[in-house]
Amino acid sequence: MNRSLFRLLALPLFLVVAPDFSAQEKDKPKPRKKRPAPVVSPTIHENGDVTFRVKALGAEKVSVTGEMVNGRLTLEKDGKTGIWSGTLEKVEPGIYGYSFDIDGVKQVDPGNPALKPMRSPRTSVLHIPGGNIFDFDPEIPHGTVHVHGYYSKPILRYREMRVYTPPGYESNDDEHYPVLVLQHGHSDAGSTWTEYGKAHWILDNLIAAEKAVPMIVVMLDGHPIPESYGNGRSPENTDELRRDLMKAALPMVEKFYRVKPGRENRAIAGLSMG
Amino acid sequence: MNRSLFRLLALPLFLVVAPDFSAQEKDKPKPRKKRPAPVVSPTIHENGDVTFRVKALGAEKVSVTGEMVNGRLTLEKDGKTGIWSGTLEKVEPGIYGYSFDIDGVKQVDPGNPALKPMRSPRTSVLHIPGGNIFDFDPEIPHGTVHVHGYYSKPILRYREMRVYTPPGYESNDDEHYPVLVLQHGHSDAGSTWTEYGKAHWILDNLIAAEKAVPMIVVMLDGHPIPESYGNGRSPENTDELRRDLMKAALPMVEKFYRVKPGRENRAIAGLSMG
Repeated sequence: MNRSLFRLLALPLFLVVAPDFSAQEKDKPKPRKKRPAPVVSPTIHENGDVTFRVKALGAEKVSVTGEMVNGRLTLEKDGKTGIWSGTLEKVEPGIYGYSFDIDGVKQVDPGNPALKPMRSPRTSVLHIPGGNIFDFDPEIPHGTVHVHGYYSKPILRYREMRVYTPPGYESNDDEHYPVLVLQHGHSDAGSTWTEYGKAHWILDNLIAAEKAVPMIVVMLDGHPIPESYGNGRSPENTDELRRDLMKAALPMVEKFYRVKPGRENRAIAGLSMG
Repeated sequence: MNRSLFRLLALPLFLVVAPDFSAQEKDKPKPRKKRPAPVVSPTIHENGDVTFRVKALGAEKVSVTGEMVNGRLTLEKDGKTGIWSGTLEKVEPGIYGYSFDIDGVKQVDPGNPALKPMRSPRTSVLHIPGGNIFDFDPEIPHGTVHVHGYYSKPILRYREMRVYTPPGYESNDDEHYPVLVLQHGHSDAGSTWTEYGKAHWILDNLIAAEKAVPMIVVMLDGHPIPESYGNGRSPENTDELRRDLMKAALPMVEKFYRVKPGRENRAIAGLSMG
């Protein structure tokens, strides 16, 4: 780990000073070694075409697979630069998981910071906005996603919980809200609902359209036992999840957030394993 | 995108029911196609050794590079399974970024869900706990990281802000806190402070040890202009960051959070570009 953060934070507050690299450079006027420009991928063109690019000098076969393509898109190599590229025509607005296949190894797009949170991270996210319920709408108010890291005493494990609060939650002190628990599918993670599924933006949109009541949404990681990933059904995993939810997570939500009481204000939903 | 989430959320609240897959399976008793077990990587052994593994059937050379190894660790292939593996001896407790190099393509470890958030995602995170200030301590109280997605009117862009609030923030209504803004280095992202740097755990530890006063920490993405990544210094990028921070982000923090007023309660720090 780069220790700079620790050194900075270990200093007393307000004595913190960012290092002045410009001064250092004046003393040592060595020219920086110029790195090649990063490979940009994907590029969403105005006509809806999408171009994928990846540098793989020695590779023999490179293709793209994903939710926006039937089968695979075979990329072609530029012999000079070693950059493989290919274009999909007229991709509909939407959110798509996709991967590069470089000589048989499925992997994320190193040109794209948007990754689908998964147990086995091999999937990048292509989001083409365009009138969908899961798009971010700059014209409406937005909720907040709160990340709690905690040690769950009922199962003796470190756990993370994400809590969505609806628009206006921070600005009023009186309103109380019902609680929905969302559970993800096998191989995903607690953050997949928001990072990939855009659950928070869907809720913002539904609430703004008065198609959903303002609510608090709780998203837990569904694999408290890491080894439960990839090994079929695990009653032990489900049991740990239940105990963590009922005895640690929900009590924390009820303590920290303004929630309505009672079973008529609790719901749970999910997809696949969830 | 898998539309299940939308379908679920579009239903009226409390009518939501998770599909009952067990019943479906009774009707259609086809055996599932058994997938091979996932490749586990990395494995941290009790003696401090760390084993890395990746499946790459057709690859010719696979190695690991990273902050915990001088040069590179060359992996060896199991001819039957196509799984490459290798072990580093006695790795000190710490947090390390590392990558696989498969025939010259640097990439994340697909066996490890912990990724370093970067503009060009090629780096996984190995965290070996052991008495460091950046470890999660189950014995002390913990703060919360709040994620705000917003449309920044001063720069006309979608932006994300992470806000750390110290332990106890949710349980008291009166206390007000000073504000520290943290800016990350070139090629990182706003979430790198927490996902990789564990800034929130460092603060929890320092506050518990009374080495830091409880404070609110604001973490913004330092590349409001995406093209500023990889293209050297960008005064335009710095200017957008400044306007977003001063005219959108900080006003939001001052509206939503209990912060102490005045310049004596504001600080900014960062590393490298930050």
